[in-house]
Amino acid sequence: MSAQGHPADGSGRIEGSRLYREIERDGTRDLVAVEEPLEIRVDGEPLSVTMRTPGDDEELALGFLYGEGLIDESRAAGPTADLAANVVEVTGPLARDPGARRFYTTSSCGVCGKGALEEVAVASAPLPPGPRVPRALLADLPDRLAQPGFERTGGLHATGLFDAAGELLLAREDVGRHNAMDKVVGAALRAGRLPLHEHLLCVSGRLSFELVQKAAIAGCPILVGVGAPSSLAIELAADRGLTLAGFARRGSVNVYAGAERVE
Amino acid sequence: MSAQGHPADGSGRIEGSRLYREIERDGTRDLVAVEEPLEIRVDGEPLSVTMRTPGDDEELALGFLYGEGLIDESRAAGPTADLAANVVEVTGPLARDPGARRFYTTSSCGVCGKGALEEVAVASAPLPPGPRVPRALLADLPDRLAQPGFERTGGLHATGLFDAAGELLLAREDVGRHNAMDKVVGAALRAGRLPLHEHLLCVSGRLSFELVQKAAIAGCPILVGVGAPSSLAIELAADRGLTLAGFARRGSVNVYAGAERVE
Repeated sequence: MSAQGHPADGSGRIEGSRLYREIERDGTRDLVAVEEPLEIRVDGEPLSVTMRTPGDDEELALGFLYGEGLIDESRAAGPTADLAANVVEVTGPLARDPGARRFYTTSSCGVCGKGALEEVAVASAPLPPGPRVPRALLADLPDRLAQPGFERTGGLHATGLFDAAGELLLAREDVGRHNAMDKVVGAALRAGRLPLHEHLLCVSGRLSFELVQKAAIAGCPILVGVGAPSSLAIELAADRGLTLAGFARRGSVNVYAGAERVE
Repeated sequence: MSAQGHPADGSGRIEGSRLYREIERDGTRDLVAVEEPLEIRVDGEPLSVTMRTPGDDEELALGFLYGEGLIDESRAAGPTADLAANVVEVTGPLARDPGARRFYTTSSCGVCGKGALEEVAVASAPLPPGPRVPRALLADLPDRLAQPGFERTGGLHATGLFDAAGELLLAREDVGRHNAMDKVVGAALRAGRLPLHEHLLCVSGRLSFELVQKAAIAGCPILVGVGAPSSLAIELAADRGLTLAGFARRGSVNVYAGAERVE
């Protein structure tokens, strides 16, 4: 990507994030998305390490813990991030033992997609009827999703939270697609917006099982992606009653589940 | 994606994989990439669960374990996959304790990118000078990377292994970009090709830290991607002496590290 519109020191700070960095490449200056490890600690004990784009680390931790069923809506305050040390400290206790394995087991047959669906069903409350929205609005969401970091680097994923009228409420970018979703859910938690019963989520890439899982647990009835859904993403959306739309681009969109919310 | 050229039962079997499945969407038939959980067990004990596209599961397990430093080149035989149960059984012992945390720590400052680089340095042997290749060859690799599943679904990542002349030796597709790389490394291990000192790897997407890590540990001196690299991917490539090229498309390519191998 070309180096345009960035601060003089070559580092990108957008909405409190440090999204990109200037490098030298082929004898010219260029901008690349920043990736660094972040450790989430609970009462001082390491819980997980994720590769992420620095910034909004408290929101990333909140969204991650909420999506794993480890905290609830009452925990909007608390985490403190040390950006220089790449650490977020969370105060316990957690809602369940984080060491308990996520397993996707049904009886003795091994792991399977059915078990994965059941696990999300246990972790998430039923979705409401939610808004009904025009198909053209779903197709238009990616164009409304601000991606300043992607425009400069080509290396960031984005997630946007929209109201039922299609107005963008907040957006986050990250090298990891799940991190961008976690940051949005964490920001919504902080803002007292959870569950997202009257909202839409839009992601810049493909629709995996885990992204549908995060949307369902956050209570969001409609999830739109620029890219393709996987088989298990569609199955989970159908199982949870979530509207799943993919390939949203150039005024077109495919609806894979929950078509009753699409006018 | 349109439903063309697939078997009558709607499931795609390509090179032993079950890549895609037929679904109904918007009143028509469509093909989507298959995603299902896979559990890797060592001596019957669960080690990890990954969301992957079924098929080549033994190779996925081999490549994953090799990239984590848990097995060496002598372990080409052994894993047995149960496709119906989504389980791969591996016989131990492993080279190190898999429970030991991956930590990226340097001194008391928390986790950091420097620690991540040092961890890969410990896990990987030095790369050889390797081949010198024309810049135009790097730019052309994505066009030589067979992606039959992506063409039908838009939902699969691919990794290809090439010789120094740019001939495609093998390719794998998966809903997870890291799985596609693991499957290729696992297949190379089985074929007795590791370390990949005279080879090139090409991925269909972005270049993250973890993909560079897997290439470096497999001994491959040149890694090319269709998408953007992250800052830490570039730092790791420079640290390990690996040639990293991104945005390989339409006859053009950017070289971010190891330019001495590019003519």
